[in-house]
Amino acid sequence: MSAYVSRVSSEPSPVRRLEPVVWGDRVPGPMTTEELASYESDGFLLLEEALDDREVRSLDDELEAVAAAMGSRDERVIREPGSDTVRSVFQIHELSGRVAELASDPRLLGRVRQILGSEAYIHQSRVNFKPGLRGKEFYWHSDFETWHFEDGMPEMRAVSVSINLTENRADNGSLMVMPGSHRTFVGCVGETPQEHYRESLRSQHYGVPSDRALEQLASAHGITQVVAPPGSALLFDSNCMHGSNGNITPYPRRNLFLVFNSVENTLVAPFGGTEPRPGHIASRDPVPLG
Amino acid sequence: MSAYVSRVSSEPSPVRRLEPVVWGDRVPGPMTTEELASYESDGFLLLEEALDDREVRSLDDELEAVAAAMGSRDERVIREPGSDTVRSVFQIHELSGRVAELASDPRLLGRVRQILGSEAYIHQSRVNFKPGLRGKEFYWHSDFETWHFEDGMPEMRAVSVSINLTENRADNGSLMVMPGSHRTFVGCVGETPQEHYRESLRSQHYGVPSDRALEQLASAHGITQVVAPPGSALLFDSNCMHGSNGNITPYPRRNLFLVFNSVENTLVAPFGGTEPRPGHIASRDPVPLG
Repeated sequence: MSAYVSRVSSEPSPVRRLEPVVWGDRVPGPMTTEELASYESDGFLLLEEALDDREVRSLDDELEAVAAAMGSRDERVIREPGSDTVRSVFQIHELSGRVAELASDPRLLGRVRQILGSEAYIHQSRVNFKPGLRGKEFYWHSDFETWHFEDGMPEMRAVSVSINLTENRADNGSLMVMPGSHRTFVGCVGETPQEHYRESLRSQHYGVPSDRALEQLASAHGITQVVAPPGSALLFDSNCMHGSNGNITPYPRRNLFLVFNSVENTLVAPFGGTEPRPGHIASRDPVPLG
Repeated sequence: MSAYVSRVSSEPSPVRRLEPVVWGDRVPGPMTTEELASYESDGFLLLEEALDDREVRSLDDELEAVAAAMGSRDERVIREPGSDTVRSVFQIHELSGRVAELASDPRLLGRVRQILGSEAYIHQSRVNFKPGLRGKEFYWHSDFETWHFEDGMPEMRAVSVSINLTENRADNGSLMVMPGSHRTFVGCVGETPQEHYRESLRSQHYGVPSDRALEQLASAHGITQVVAPPGSALLFDSNCMHGSNGNITPYPRRNLFLVFNSVENTLVAPFGGTEPRPGHIASRDPVPLG
């Protein structure tokens, strides 16, 4: 039984988050007290120049090669709605040696451990290719809402890291976040069909906040567009309300996305009552990193 | 017979524009020599605070009222693809007294006459409602390409004025233009079906530049996103390459769009060989303004 309500027939009221954002001060690491406070308050923190140019280039080359080599029926490959263009490749940390290394890199993992107050493992990883000219939007959502109801993640105790592989510009569909929205759980209307994930990764129909909830959240918190050069990394809380517009510019927006979950927060049965989604979307094989 | 080639079966090479951008210095007006030079070079000019707050509010209220009162089968109303949400209302200068006044306002018309070197009339007018949360993109296009091939506008001698009714933010699907692109005519692949306009005003399938042409133009000219407060007005050339992303923010982006054509450039038979589009999209009844 969950403390949060979602995927029901009438709209639940938004509720205050129960869990802390930064879990204790048990783990030392590279983040300053100010940075932790900023993450706690906003629900995200941008690390400029987390990776240098050479690292980004090598990583990007490897990811393009991995994506190009994927079989057309591989279920880890998600295509754009109504097209064959690759939108995302999942479980990328098992497909790319460089991503696997990066997941244990102290620059990322050290910070993640500070926030989670524990060891961590990769809950989900993917590369998002938002191509130029025809990139589609990712509508507003809280990842935790999905991970709780579709995957059985018990608590808000996961950190997502989004690493820019190309320039994230104001005009090419950069990530938008509502600072402070991670303090509120927004339940969504609509029971989840079985095997929903096959469609939802292309475009979302369940787990979508109501217009009114989004208008209220935006009015309370505003919207921050994360415009940053390649190599920067955004750390953000699992319950941040976020999304991104489409991209008609010719400038692709590629991001590597790693979700670190606490080893004390491993998955149980999905709280929405559906079958668990497959392991390449939500790992049930927690191997502590580092 | 047109000097420009488009709507054909294989991709035409981009060609240099034949017409001037600023037509002579016959007409005095409020634009300085520097402003005219900037318009000539970029193909557009932003006028900050063209209208004051009170004017914008009155205008916006009137436009909302007009849109709300339009019959559901009125052909001047265009809805979003796959939805009943109003995307645009055409011929708005004949539906709204305030818009009619604005079309003859010396702040706009004075500048338009300077650029066109002649008297002007309204070729097309509309209000674009890009709603919050579900606003769809307008893909890249040159208006002149459409107006020449679908409406029979002989030359590049028209000025569009886009007036911001709401804040045009970096994140709510603001207009993007490629500065300097007005110097190049980009022909498009694909013959135009009859009555194409019924679909194209919802989402565009013909008169669309190729990926390669857009990549080349963007690489040569870059992209400028027009971020500006309510009341500002963008004057832009009929052959500017422009477009806008979708809008998932809750902040609507509403713009009033007036196209001033030179009285020396009135419509003839469409150069694409189709029947002319109706008068609410392309006026064949030129009444000089002012």
